[in-house]
Amino acid sequence: MTDRDALKAACDVTVGFPHDGDTLPGDRLRAIAAFMDARGWGDDSYMTGAPARELEDMTAALVGQEAALWFPTGTMAQAAAARIHAAQTGRDTLLLHPSSHLELHERHGYREAHGLRAELTPDWRTVLNAKDVRTAQGDPAAVFLEMPARHSGGALPGWDELIALREACRERGAPLHFDGARLWTCTEAYPGRSLAEIGAMADSVYVSFYKDIGALGGAALAGSKAFIEQAVIWRERLGGLVIRGWPQIADTLRLLPERLARMPAYVTRARELAALIGAASGFEIEPASPKTAMFHVRMPMGADLVLAARDHAAKETGVWLANRFWDIESPKIRSAEITVGERVMAVDPQRIADAFAAMARYQRGEGV
Amino acid sequence: MTDRDALKAACDVTVGFPHDGDTLPGDRLRAIAAFMDARGWGDDSYMTGAPARELEDMTAALVGQEAALWFPTGTMAQAAAARIHAAQTGRDTLLLHPSSHLELHERHGYREAHGLRAELTPDWRTVLNAKDVRTAQGDPAAVFLEMPARHSGGALPGWDELIALREACRERGAPLHFDGARLWTCTEAYPGRSLAEIGAMADSVYVSFYKDIGALGGAALAGSKAFIEQAVIWRERLGGLVIRGWPQIADTLRLLPERLARMPAYVTRARELAALIGAASGFEIEPASPKTAMFHVRMPMGADLVLAARDHAAKETGVWLANRFWDIESPKIRSAEITVGERVMAVDPQRIADAFAAMARYQRGEGV
Repeated sequence: MTDRDALKAACDVTVGFPHDGDTLPGDRLRAIAAFMDARGWGDDSYMTGAPARELEDMTAALVGQEAALWFPTGTMAQAAAARIHAAQTGRDTLLLHPSSHLELHERHGYREAHGLRAELTPDWRTVLNAKDVRTAQGDPAAVFLEMPARHSGGALPGWDELIALREACRERGAPLHFDGARLWTCTEAYPGRSLAEIGAMADSVYVSFYKDIGALGGAALAGSKAFIEQAVIWRERLGGLVIRGWPQIADTLRLLPERLARMPAYVTRARELAALIGAASGFEIEPASPKTAMFHVRMPMGADLVLAARDHAAKETGVWLANRFWDIESPKIRSAEITVGERVMAVDPQRIADAFAAMARYQRGEGV
Repeated sequence: MTDRDALKAACDVTVGFPHDGDTLPGDRLRAIAAFMDARGWGDDSYMTGAPARELEDMTAALVGQEAALWFPTGTMAQAAAARIHAAQTGRDTLLLHPSSHLELHERHGYREAHGLRAELTPDWRTVLNAKDVRTAQGDPAAVFLEMPARHSGGALPGWDELIALREACRERGAPLHFDGARLWTCTEAYPGRSLAEIGAMADSVYVSFYKDIGALGGAALAGSKAFIEQAVIWRERLGGLVIRGWPQIADTLRLLPERLARMPAYVTRARELAALIGAASGFEIEPASPKTAMFHVRMPMGADLVLAARDHAAKETGVWLANRFWDIESPKIRSAEITVGERVMAVDPQRIADAFAAMARYQRGEGV
């Protein structure tokens, strides 16, 4: 064990990815087993059985689309969406935000595996918008809007901006796709709008089942019936037709209703926590008031300094703030990503704020 | 429930895919949980933990290659192999047998998703061989040899033919890839040769963990260290980097040693059973003496007749022979695929032979 591992282990609070590592594999598998036994579900092959059907129907209804299809990963779900829209439009360029998952975290599969190109919008800190669509160099095969934008701390367009964006997409004949990995947490940002109303703004929607829901894994793609018929073919072509998806699928069905019901509480807590951290540390919060269950704390520090400050805060407060800090926007900024799930809910928000304050003091060279 | 479902349910023996449906999900998940608890394995993300490492190291050693990488499906593992070999050789055509999984069962992903082409060898009932490589129209990006050839009942080249094939591949600068979905059962066909010696004949090897092993799912690709470094990139690009592979991976580690040890018994039983079926029914067995744990029973029947004959046999003998019969080689032939696993091992072979004899009598219009 390194000194750093020991320091982390000595902390009584760990703030990180919202649900990772919260459950021991054995306990989780027994919980899934009990859930499946209670439903009377037997073995099935290639996701033809009741668990997949139930989850797909539930997902389609939740996100306001006609049909949905389970995928082993979001990377594959979005690749299928891109392929289908590209074939449908006869175009080859995706309009992406520079912080898009496709651009940053998939080894450029859209280009290297799928022969597509990307046009990136100009500004990291501006959410993809109607003007971006109107001024795109070519007509896009699809516009990928990340809802919410993870690397901007969960930023979201306003409702009217969303309507304008959809209109701009229609003008250019470009399908609007939601990269909705964290779509579940968006409802609080659009008072009076259901998840189904939000999802129905897009032509296709991807949602993740592990990020904010905390299931074992898996994702879904939703859209029109004709779109999902194509997705079935692409899932098989891309190697996503696993023989048994039910461990992941049943775990999702077990957790989804309960976690969805908790989203408003997570968002409320994110807003409280962000205000406390901003006040205690002076660091910039992005977005200034969180739109969803996540936000970023932007710290003007270099790579070594931010880790030393995190370690200092851990020693002083017993709070381990993050294993890593995002530096992809700019080498001058390190962003701590805070996502509220059950782990953060269980902690006094002031303790997390105090830990950031300790980082700020360390940065200023005070009291170290 | 249809009449046919009721008939199947009334049978006390079901001969089908060797392990499907043998375990209730709840029981299987509890067995995996106990296995993981005993190993002390915690949660891990993106297959970076001990379960994946152990299975990948074990697989590489078993199939005589330097390194291995887990994949969620064989379709994806083989697509990655094809992509890597194509990039390495600067070529775009795979030499495939007409019964290749890539040609028949993947919605032509090699072409539609990966931009590759196929050259098919001329004869369904002849295993891909050195002459096919020497007379291929262009230099292949890779030669895909199915080991064993599923749609020829598990046919295999002889050892000397395998050496000649490897030599022919080298002459044309074409990597030799084993589609080894069922490679585990090949050792009995090459007396004195280990699985590692067999696997080492190829430049890359794919193995399945669910077909003859009966695990929840998953596959592996094995090859040189440099090849597997590329496979890591392709797995991510294609959407195979699942967040939690350990349900599938741990189940494989739980079952692989025990099932591998049973392979010789399965092959011996396959040979006994094939001889009994041939003698009792007069149907042709392919291969005449099984090479592996599988074989096909070739029946000159049309689509309706074969199902009626199967139903008749079920009523008469209480044995449900198959849910479907392969007709892809020729509309004049229906092939019953028999694979010996624990389910078939538990049945008196004569009962299965008697069921095929009942199908033959039905076909001849006798005693119906």
